[in-house]
Amino acid sequence: MSDALVIFTPSGKRGRFALGTPVLTAARQLGVDLDSVCGGRGICSKCQITPGYGEFSKHGVHVGDGALSEWNAVEQRYKEKRGLIDGRRLGCQAKVMGDVVIDVPPESQVHRQVVRKAASVRTVSMDPATRLYLVEVEEPDMHEPSGDLERLARALRKQWEIPGISAGLEVLRKLQPALRAGKWQVTVALHKDHRPGAHRLLDIWPGLYEGGLYGLAIDLGSTTIAAHLCDLRTGEVIGSSGVMNPQIRFGEDLMSRVSYAMMNPGGDAEMTRAVRDGLDALIRALADEAAIPPHAIVEAVIVCNPVMHHLLLGIDPVELGQAPFALATSDALSIDARDLNLSSLNPAARAYLLPCIAGHVGADAAAVALSEAPETSDDLVLIVDVGTNAEILLGDKRRVLACSSPTGPAFEGAQISSGQRAAPGAIERVEIDPASKEPRFRVIGCDLWSDEPGFAEATEATGITGICGSGIIEAVAEMRMAGIVDRSGLIGGPEQTGTWRSQPEGRTFAYLLHDASATGGPRITVTQGDIRAIQLAKSALYAGARLLMDEIGTDHVDRVVLAGAFGAHISPKHAMVLGMIPDAALDKVTSAGNAAGTGARIALCSISARQSIEANVHRIHKVETAIEPRFQEHFVNANALPHAVDTFPELARLVTLPDVSFNTGGGESDGGRRRRRRA
Amino acid sequence: MSDALVIFTPSGKRGRFALGTPVLTAARQLGVDLDSVCGGRGICSKCQITPGYGEFSKHGVHVGDGALSEWNAVEQRYKEKRGLIDGRRLGCQAKVMGDVVIDVPPESQVHRQVVRKAASVRTVSMDPATRLYLVEVEEPDMHEPSGDLERLARALRKQWEIPGISAGLEVLRKLQPALRAGKWQVTVALHKDHRPGAHRLLDIWPGLYEGGLYGLAIDLGSTTIAAHLCDLRTGEVIGSSGVMNPQIRFGEDLMSRVSYAMMNPGGDAEMTRAVRDGLDALIRALADEAAIPPHAIVEAVIVCNPVMHHLLLGIDPVELGQAPFALATSDALSIDARDLNLSSLNPAARAYLLPCIAGHVGADAAAVALSEAPETSDDLVLIVDVGTNAEILLGDKRRVLACSSPTGPAFEGAQISSGQRAAPGAIERVEIDPASKEPRFRVIGCDLWSDEPGFAEATEATGITGICGSGIIEAVAEMRMAGIVDRSGLIGGPEQTGTWRSQPEGRTFAYLLHDASATGGPRITVTQGDIRAIQLAKSALYAGARLLMDEIGTDHVDRVVLAGAFGAHISPKHAMVLGMIPDAALDKVTSAGNAAGTGARIALCSISARQSIEANVHRIHKVETAIEPRFQEHFVNANALPHAVDTFPELARLVTLPDVSFNTGGGESDGGRRRRRRA
Repeated sequence: MSDALVIFTPSGKRGRFALGTPVLTAARQLGVDLDSVCGGRGICSKCQITPGYGEFSKHGVHVGDGALSEWNAVEQRYKEKRGLIDGRRLGCQAKVMGDVVIDVPPESQVHRQVVRKAASVRTVSMDPATRLYLVEVEEPDMHEPSGDLERLARALRKQWEIPGISAGLEVLRKLQPALRAGKWQVTVALHKDHRPGAHRLLDIWPGLYEGGLYGLAIDLGSTTIAAHLCDLRTGEVIGSSGVMNPQIRFGEDLMSRVSYAMMNPGGDAEMTRAVRDGLDALIRALADEAAIPPHAIVEAVIVCNPVMHHLLLGIDPVELGQAPFALATSDALSIDARDLNLSSLNPAARAYLLPCIAGHVGADAAAVALSEAPETSDDLVLIVDVGTNAEILLGDKRRVLACSSPTGPAFEGAQISSGQRAAPGAIERVEIDPASKEPRFRVIGCDLWSDEPGFAEATEATGITGICGSGIIEAVAEMRMAGIVDRSGLIGGPEQTGTWRSQPEGRTFAYLLHDASATGGPRITVTQGDIRAIQLAKSALYAGARLLMDEIGTDHVDRVVLAGAFGAHISPKHAMVLGMIPDAALDKVTSAGNAAGTGARIALCSISARQSIEANVHRIHKVETAIEPRFQEHFVNANALPHAVDTFPELARLVTLPDVSFNTGGGESDGGRRRRRRA
Repeated sequence: MSDALVIFTPSGKRGRFALGTPVLTAARQLGVDLDSVCGGRGICSKCQITPGYGEFSKHGVHVGDGALSEWNAVEQRYKEKRGLIDGRRLGCQAKVMGDVVIDVPPESQVHRQVVRKAASVRTVSMDPATRLYLVEVEEPDMHEPSGDLERLARALRKQWEIPGISAGLEVLRKLQPALRAGKWQVTVALHKDHRPGAHRLLDIWPGLYEGGLYGLAIDLGSTTIAAHLCDLRTGEVIGSSGVMNPQIRFGEDLMSRVSYAMMNPGGDAEMTRAVRDGLDALIRALADEAAIPPHAIVEAVIVCNPVMHHLLLGIDPVELGQAPFALATSDALSIDARDLNLSSLNPAARAYLLPCIAGHVGADAAAVALSEAPETSDDLVLIVDVGTNAEILLGDKRRVLACSSPTGPAFEGAQISSGQRAAPGAIERVEIDPASKEPRFRVIGCDLWSDEPGFAEATEATGITGICGSGIIEAVAEMRMAGIVDRSGLIGGPEQTGTWRSQPEGRTFAYLLHDASATGGPRITVTQGDIRAIQLAKSALYAGARLLMDEIGTDHVDRVVLAGAFGAHISPKHAMVLGMIPDAALDKVTSAGNAAGTGARIALCSISARQSIEANVHRIHKVETAIEPRFQEHFVNANALPHAVDTFPELARLVTLPDVSFNTGGGESDGGRRRRRRA
């Protein structure tokens, strides 16, 4: 026998190879996904495999003990120095000596799956833009006077089939010392996205670089900035953090920031500086927390709405504040991270911004589309990314529509009298007994309800500090179901509601949720103003969804996906009671968590995902809410808080009172005034 | 007749066109080189042509008065507003109405010739990397929500067949205001060098931009930095300037700068800062003098030796100070000028560095090769670029060799007791009467010889301040021819030379050239040390040339080209008397002026020239002087100053004395000491 049959699992790829062929070589020739940084030099250990001795019948192959060459000294040294799981071999050392089944464990696959979404068939395989390569470079020779960079390029061409490289001055500076310190063996980080052009040399280390290589997936929201630090080899998230967007001091919502730029010369530059500084500080904190050097971060993928997109890039967003809402650029951008003054990253780090769908529907919406893939859905799915601006996608395999709706920051706890960010101490869940009108609640950081024993002790450390986005949604919905608020959104007085918790506050009433003022703590109420803010926000959201449904010609969606940084925390039931989203069966309303952030992570891990979203955005049909008269119509009609029973027949058991109305004629004009403010 | 014959001169291209075809359209279809920035909109006037009424017989065509359409209102308005030479028409307005001969004047040719070299067949045609395009961009539309940049790209594709563009953040910032101010008509500056990749958007202006577009050709020498400011449309040099290289304070020659970097941590960064700051100041001064905004400068082509190359790029030059003299990178570089901190240029300006030939033969030598094109020469040409380091090229059509020789700065007037830069007041020409031993001289800024009437008055303003590079070469050669200096380089005393001008200075003698000390002016002498410095410099130069001649197997060159910033000023006769260069017929020794600077200018004006030199450097065979034992041999043998009659039989009439020898046994050891210093 001069050759042998080799079968790789899980791929099932198979072929015959001459005896003595290294397993790594066989894998490469068959196109099996088996990692290697050192190119088979027995030093990186990325090509670990498990020979399947005894897998006789399954694959119809008789596999003997001598099917691979003997365990060798290189493997022994590796095992002693770094450890190797029993039964594992190094694919570059083990040679084929007989028929064999070889399993490639997930850690040894370059393109292992990283983002698995339970609710969808979608999986994402590792296919990062930046990878490490160990390479041996020829020494310089006076008789053949090429530069070190040119010899490195030649070695990469020969040893890794990389056709060409380019290098910036920062890394060029490190080239000569690294080559000499590594005795002409170096590890390079090469970046290649899916666009034409040479591989870009991002960094270089003497010998085998054993540190990590990291990337950031950043969801740059109007109110909060969230970032995930990912290992670019495994796709694993090794740290996550969020901060308030420091631009908030220039205006809480996007339009007020655009106004700030219009009214103040240099105002856009001020906001650009603020957001870049905030991002850079967040990056430093994340690297610190994960105990990695920030220079090991070589990529950042950023998703954001168009105004944040322009402000981050240093482009005056004034055109986004007026029809026709023209973007300076809509395509995806691949740029040097230092152009964004993200100076704590590797000096050669790259930044990728997803494409924008339109002037009001940004890269964040594109990221949601990448994460949720409505274009692959069999049934009609409504995806709502709730933030200061809501991005709404509606579609299925046939077509996908998108719009954006100005909900304002109320859903995030801002503009709410006792509102706060979702942080320990914030009320996040609320229930109100329909009979007694007494509330109970839970706060972030404690698993107990407020009426359960031990709650006071458990919350002593954090206190009860305010109410966050999901808390206010539940509070308003519960107030409505308990008959404390009527259809128009008016809070009844104590005589009307039958509870002392309805307390006068100015010319209206407020519902007292929690009172610690006796002990110097806060007094947490839901005021008439809070109800109005939530009504405006939910009307905008609902109207946007309706507009897309009109466009597609339907008054029913098959399922609803709630996304957004706090999408995971919204109770679908309460959202529907409030009329935030169109009616759907409760079990068809799911949460996707921070889908925009997930989309950013997918794009960070996979250049083919970048390619796919860049193509897809052109197929998403954009609907402009600002110029659609029907949007105003839907918005006005959505102002009321429906009776819960209208929405959910199955909720009837909870709603023990007939619907109430506290309207004294003032509510309507109050609502009218607020609507005008928005226009 | 429904069509007509159109013949273009000077190209001779001809074709038949339907009556009514605009001349510009006909030119484009025939591939005639007729410029247009506005694309035929009648506003840029770049497409001016002269119809050849009456050119009957010459082209065998009868051309009538009605061969072109009538002079129209657009042309009339243009003529009134901007002026138009009588007889000229605008090619986009004039339509073909009958057989016609049309002349395209040089100003209307895109690819007009700019660099014409008298001594060579080589001509360079305009083919710049950056060009202007007027373009009409579609307005944004909410129903088709593409970005402004994407619509600009689409317009350029449709109107100019430009396949794709990329834009940095700096220019992206200007895009939206420019499009709106120009009512969706803008002029863009697009940069495209000969490498793969999209056109790069460098700048944008509302409407038709009528300002200039400029580039810099920079010769960055160890001692001086020279720059030419060129109009990128015409190739014309509109300003030139030079400054001392501010790195001089870190060491006069290259090796002392490399030592500075090795001995002082951060010393390379210090030198990088110094040269970049110096360059930027020079650029500002040039723009100021030419009264153009520095932002209109969009390109810089830089040539320099390898050490300056690395220091400019911010790369530690330490490897260039020791064998094998490895360059960090040898290929040509096309980078953002702001990466070199050239902040007064257009923020998107590009910098192009010519390729290096080897660790000792830099981009300056490549530029000389580009300018002098030895690879096209029928006879064997020796090209010597004299500077602090001499670059030497030897070759013909069959092969070209190159080396570099460390002459030191003596030829530039440095390390000379009365030496100075070539500036008004410096002695640049010297004659010594062989009989009387009396000198006469000329100084820069005055056309009279020092013994002519009016000389004292004419030089009163500048004074006589010192002696520059060409002056010291002539002085030493004349001293040798007059018998004041002997073959070994020793200056004789007054008894030996028979002139009171041989005056003791320490333990040796000096020749007094000029004495104004009585009136408080300088006393200008040529000392024994000066002679030794010139001997070392000329030996190094000669030895390098001989080494190349050995390699090619010849002891004779057909012609010699003297290049270098002061190459134009060296007298070939004196250079040969000194033994700077191998013997050749006097009329075969020509000066090419600053050939490296000319090469930079050629590369600035023509991307095909860049392409050609990038290919050619790989064909130039590099000889390393530092490791060739024969170099030392030639160097030692070249130390003597030959008797002029040995070199030039035709000079015999000038040399009235038999050759002299003042050797007292000390000269040899003196020379030996100095040679050791160099090793």
